[in-house]
Amino acid sequence: MALLLSGPPERATIWAQVFAEAGERLIVAPEAPEDRADVTAIACWKPPADLSLYPALRAVISVGAGVDQMPAMPKGVTLCRTLAVGIEQMVRDWVVMSCLMLHRDMPRYLDQERRGEWSSGPVAPAHRRTVGVMGLGRIGRLAMDSLQALGFQTCGWSRSGDPLPGHRVYGAADLRSFLAQAQTLVCLLPLTDQTRGILNADLFAQLPMGAHLVHAGRGAQLDSAALMAALDGGRIGAAMLDVTNPEPLPQDHPLWSDPRVVVTPHVAASTDAQEGARHALAVLAALRQGAPLPGRVDPGQGY
Amino acid sequence: MALLLSGPPERATIWAQVFAEAGERLIVAPEAPEDRADVTAIACWKPPADLSLYPALRAVISVGAGVDQMPAMPKGVTLCRTLAVGIEQMVRDWVVMSCLMLHRDMPRYLDQERRGEWSSGPVAPAHRRTVGVMGLGRIGRLAMDSLQALGFQTCGWSRSGDPLPGHRVYGAADLRSFLAQAQTLVCLLPLTDQTRGILNADLFAQLPMGAHLVHAGRGAQLDSAALMAALDGGRIGAAMLDVTNPEPLPQDHPLWSDPRVVVTPHVAASTDAQEGARHALAVLAALRQGAPLPGRVDPGQGY
Ligand SMILES: NC(=O)c1ccc[n+]([C@@H]2O[C@H](COP(=O)([O-])OP(=O)(O)OC[C@H]3O[C@@H](n4cnc5c(N)ncnc54)[C@H](OP(=O)(O)O)[C@@H]3O)[C@@H](O)[C@H]2O)c1
Ligand SMILES: NC(=O)c1ccc[n+]([C@@H]2O[C@H](COP(=O)([O-])OP(=O)(O)OC[C@H]3O[C@@H](n4cnc5c(N)ncnc54)[C@H](OP(=O)(O)O)[C@@H]3O)[C@@H](O)[C@H]2O)c1
Repeated sequence: MALLLSGPPERATIWAQVFAEAGERLIVAPEAPEDRADVTAIACWKPPADLSLYPALRAVISVGAGVDQMPAMPKGVTLCRTLAVGIEQMVRDWVVMSCLMLHRDMPRYLDQERRGEWSSGPVAPAHRRTVGVMGLGRIGRLAMDSLQALGFQTCGWSRSGDPLPGHRVYGAADLRSFLAQAQTLVCLLPLTDQTRGILNADLFAQLPMGAHLVHAGRGAQLDSAALMAALDGGRIGAAMLDVTNPEPLPQDHPLWSDPRVVVTPHVAASTDAQEGARHALAVLAALRQGAPLPGRVDPGQGY
Repeated sequence: MALLLSGPPERATIWAQVFAEAGERLIVAPEAPEDRADVTAIACWKPPADLSLYPALRAVISVGAGVDQMPAMPKGVTLCRTLAVGIEQMVRDWVVMSCLMLHRDMPRYLDQERRGEWSSGPVAPAHRRTVGVMGLGRIGRLAMDSLQALGFQTCGWSRSGDPLPGHRVYGAADLRSFLAQAQTLVCLLPLTDQTRGILNADLFAQLPMGAHLVHAGRGAQLDSAALMAALDGGRIGAAMLDVTNPEPLPQDHPLWSDPRVVVTPHVAASTDAQEGARHALAVLAALRQGAPLPGRVDPGQGY
């Protein structure tokens, strides 16, 4: 029983230490062909093209929070995603920062700063703004709570529409009612066939005029041309994007230089190497005991 | 009994309405000389130079949160500052946004954005950073609570050092111990003789290397040359300034173009005109009843 890790050398060094302390075997990619028969689990962003080279393989672990980059798993192999303590909080922090930056007109003030212009606009209290969160999973729920604690009005949208104590929640069928209220729209959806391209012209048209967009889901959910048109038409007033389409954003892309848009290079969260290694050990332990694997992804649901 | 208001016409319109509804008399500056004898209170940012022109004057109300711009009051005149619901929350929001922006490397990413550069650095969880708040009044306490709720470690510093439940607090004499921990230093002090120029080379030298500065107190507390030297020496890694020295910051000032510094033009809060008018009515009511004036400033203390 061994785990094959594919990733940067800094990560491998930390995993090697955590695995050594736990007495588990770690193989760092590229592995020697004679080691393949021992590989029970692979931890990676994208797995090797031919998984049939690993006859003992039982689990593939995505080292990121999403699994949309993963191919379908062969029979008998379970897909998991890293459950690293702290990822949710990091994304939440980025989302709270971004909602505040847009609410407090930072795009305007950053633009003025380039010109050395001291000119102050009105200040609005947080309770005058409703933030709508799309995707009420681990991260979305945390974001709603923190935004509400700062005084923002909140509403949420998820597939199931399952109620969340203290929040107004809409289900898949009620997207229109949800969007009509979202003066700031936060996207925290996983990328699936249903959510690819969901942030498009049709959706933007249902937002209040001048709405803010905060996007921390996945780049492929965003129609960038539609966003630029919505900015030009005034439907969207400003946006913060941590994920982009295409991603990475090419150097000459107009979103970089648009003063109404702030782009960060997919840094809302990163998995702490120690936390990631500990989760991988827990997957190995569950495999040994025949217990459910931590972070297991429902293949039908796709996230 | 009448209140003399000095301020922009938009504010005067709203105050006129609130006063009319309450049946109180409002005089909008510049007043006719024959009205001066009726003026019991003046609401302003800075009062008229010669207060002896108003024989019935009993109170001067600062329409801002600070009173450092106010002269000494003549005998029999009480200085008050606006107690407008929401100011504290607005400043808290700006402070939380600013601590997050520096913690999440926004100065670096904003600089990269100018060049269209997609390059991501490490992400640190909030609990790895201690934020030290100077000034634990209405705003400082709120800021400490919100920063702690986001996972930051916190410590505070005030004149008295009065304990705050759930926080480590240092008194005036323990400044050194406080500063040694403050990886982010937030200034929310009132401007007094004791705090003028307090953010200087000597203070910066006591911070951890690479510390962040978030300044939302008053411009005259900051030694701008010392800040620039501390940035160049690496003692301070990045700064967010809502108040500057001089203020407004002249167009050619080097702080505007420094990529490690983000400047906003004194917009952490603004007094809502309705709230301000309601507070002024409460001051008039207290004068009539001989009750303590709401927002009364202790002349000995100076804030
Ligand atoms: N930018 C970054 O660095 C970064 C980092 C981490 C994560 N992320 C993104 O954030 C996403 C969310 O993460 P998480 O851990 O909170 O996910 P999660 O716990 O799996 O929750 C997903 C949520 O999305 C909802 N959802 C899924 N498909 C939907 C659909 N078609 N229509 C409406 N709602 C739908 C789910 O609804 P139900 O509750 O009804 O199932 C659930 O509330 C990740 O998938 C990833 O895309 C980004
Ligand atoms: N940027 C903006 O737009 C904006 C807006 C509003 C306010 N402000 C600034 O924020 C300041 C704080 O407002 P606030 O309403 O929270 O004030 P506050 O309630 O009067 O509290 C002032 C705090 O500062 C402490 N303090 C005063 N002098 C000190 C000294 N010499 N050494 C150490 N601590 C000292 C006090 O200590 P004790 O508790 O021991 O008395 C108290 O904790 C205002 O004075 C203003 O400068 C800025």
